[in-house]
Amino acid sequence: MGPARTFPWPALHEFCARVFEHVGVPDGEARLAADILSASDRRGIDSHGVARLRTYYDLLAAGRINPRPRPRIVRETPSTATVDGDNGLGLVAGPWANEIAMAKAETAGSGWVSVCNTNHYGIAGYYVLQAVARDMIGWSMTNSSKGVAPLWGAERMLGTNPIAIGVPAGAEPPVVLDMATCTVAYGKIEIAMREGKAIPLGWAIDGDGRPTTDPHEMNDGGALVPLGSDREHGGHKGYGLALAVDILSAVLSGANWGPFAPPFALRQALPEREVGKGIGHFFGAMRVDAFRDTAEFKAQMDDLIRALRATRPAPGTAGPLLPGDPEREAQAVRDVEGIPVGAAVLADLGEIARATGVPLE
Amino acid sequence: MGPARTFPWPALHEFCARVFEHVGVPDGEARLAADILSASDRRGIDSHGVARLRTYYDLLAAGRINPRPRPRIVRETPSTATVDGDNGLGLVAGPWANEIAMAKAETAGSGWVSVCNTNHYGIAGYYVLQAVARDMIGWSMTNSSKGVAPLWGAERMLGTNPIAIGVPAGAEPPVVLDMATCTVAYGKIEIAMREGKAIPLGWAIDGDGRPTTDPHEMNDGGALVPLGSDREHGGHKGYGLALAVDILSAVLSGANWGPFAPPFALRQALPEREVGKGIGHFFGAMRVDAFRDTAEFKAQMDDLIRALRATRPAPGTAGPLLPGDPEREAQAVRDVEGIPVGAAVLADLGEIARATGVPLE
Repeated sequence: MGPARTFPWPALHEFCARVFEHVGVPDGEARLAADILSASDRRGIDSHGVARLRTYYDLLAAGRINPRPRPRIVRETPSTATVDGDNGLGLVAGPWANEIAMAKAETAGSGWVSVCNTNHYGIAGYYVLQAVARDMIGWSMTNSSKGVAPLWGAERMLGTNPIAIGVPAGAEPPVVLDMATCTVAYGKIEIAMREGKAIPLGWAIDGDGRPTTDPHEMNDGGALVPLGSDREHGGHKGYGLALAVDILSAVLSGANWGPFAPPFALRQALPEREVGKGIGHFFGAMRVDAFRDTAEFKAQMDDLIRALRATRPAPGTAGPLLPGDPEREAQAVRDVEGIPVGAAVLADLGEIARATGVPLE
Repeated sequence: MGPARTFPWPALHEFCARVFEHVGVPDGEARLAADILSASDRRGIDSHGVARLRTYYDLLAAGRINPRPRPRIVRETPSTATVDGDNGLGLVAGPWANEIAMAKAETAGSGWVSVCNTNHYGIAGYYVLQAVARDMIGWSMTNSSKGVAPLWGAERMLGTNPIAIGVPAGAEPPVVLDMATCTVAYGKIEIAMREGKAIPLGWAIDGDGRPTTDPHEMNDGGALVPLGSDREHGGHKGYGLALAVDILSAVLSGANWGPFAPPFALRQALPEREVGKGIGHFFGAMRVDAFRDTAEFKAQMDDLIRALRATRPAPGTAGPLLPGDPEREAQAVRDVEGIPVGAAVLADLGEIARATGVPLE
């Protein structure tokens, strides 16, 4: 199934920004939010870009997300802060909090910010790229509504809880790890359902907690599983990482944790308990020159990257990639050829265009 | 194969401390190093306790590790430091650097320390427990000599590069994640070889980079694989985590990274290049009350832990554990019943006893 239509990314960016403005988001913040969605589309992460505009729009239009939040620091030390996002877009509270992490890194060497009362923040990788551009090592995490079972559990208790870490290099591109802590994203289950295909063992369990190859069984009350899949292959490790993300993002900030993180969807039921405010993010920034001369560090990073690229390839492969390679390669193509948009998303955008009067060109 | 003998842990602790002293380690540092080995034995991590004494002893006796190091801070900011371990035991440089991370957290909210010119530091989990005891969230990582192939690589390029994160709770025990970033530890390959058994697919590759179920094929020029095992199950994620540990521990500090980390063994060949000094560690500490009232945080941690324990169990299991449960349960048993020591390790200890005159009682 090819794309229904292809757009140059600036056209989608303009549309997103104007839609955000239409539902009350101030101009500068609307453009920032659109920047993050465009970063996702350009980097080839179709699930987190313009495809999510509909949900952001629905939640803003319904008053579930505050279009004009005033995020504030509720506690801080020289190298840390806790931020209340005032129930704004994560696409606004996220960059605001990440900026504080980077500013603290400027003065204290490192900065670490936990955020509550916020919403979906787009791709985790966007934030660490901001740090990388300032010769910092960037960290970004967020919790999200439940979809993943802990190892040996039969029900959804944790989100896909991504971790991103970005590291600047010299002549080589930066290393940008951006990974969910479950085996695969829910999007791959959706694709298998749409195409009527089985999924590999090790991606999901059914509603009884048994491993399944039927994507519908995962979807109907089953769950994704943590990175590592099962006990024998280290599923307890992926579960532990997902839990660490939940604690740093939500327990530390005062957001809703675990199964109580609110859904990013208008029509899904709210969790049975409220144990905090909104969802939570966690950002970190460490100045490279707080640890080592920056030029020296970058030269060593280049050397390490080249050593990894020179690894003898496994059969049937071209050898190891570096984290961030696929996204950078996608961006090189998409900045020229445009962003492919499928029929379902195109229909959503058309509806939004009609409802708001913002033209989709 | 049962243990050849069982010792109360204080007897092994005393033996280790006196052996370290015999090869020139000052008394206080020798006891600290023995503390870390005992923590491993007590927590049920047989691979990292007294079983490693022989290698520490060999390297100290051969002058490959400096028994009287003077670790020093070579660069620092209010929340960060870079430490040169002066080629001492990681069991000495590690606690010294971790203490700096915690002291910086006291004054700046968080502290982050990267260490070069150091050696094997025992279990990663030991360090985060020190932070937890001070109501801090602790982080600990180390690189190690090559044993793991990057995804799509056919040769060893990275270490098993563990990550530990420790989080204090209230009435519930702390959450203590302590995980290698590969699927399984090398020790499981050794056990399979000894028992003449096959290993599961997804643990290792052979010397040509093909998945193998023969532990000898891994051992003879093959490699362990990153958490996630293969592309379909997220092996690129485990690889990315292993790389992040390598960067934070070694590139940031000026230690040897990737395939050039020196082996923890007297008889293994040294790597062909020296790209830094020794191996590297990375420690972090964040004061809980830098982010949130400590009592509030701990109450929420208890609530989260109980919610996870109440997860509906998967068939054939008693439901999810929390990270740190198995080690705590092992300690409860071993503090009463003693530490089982197998025949090979017992023979090593006997040789050390004869060579040093330190009695093993």
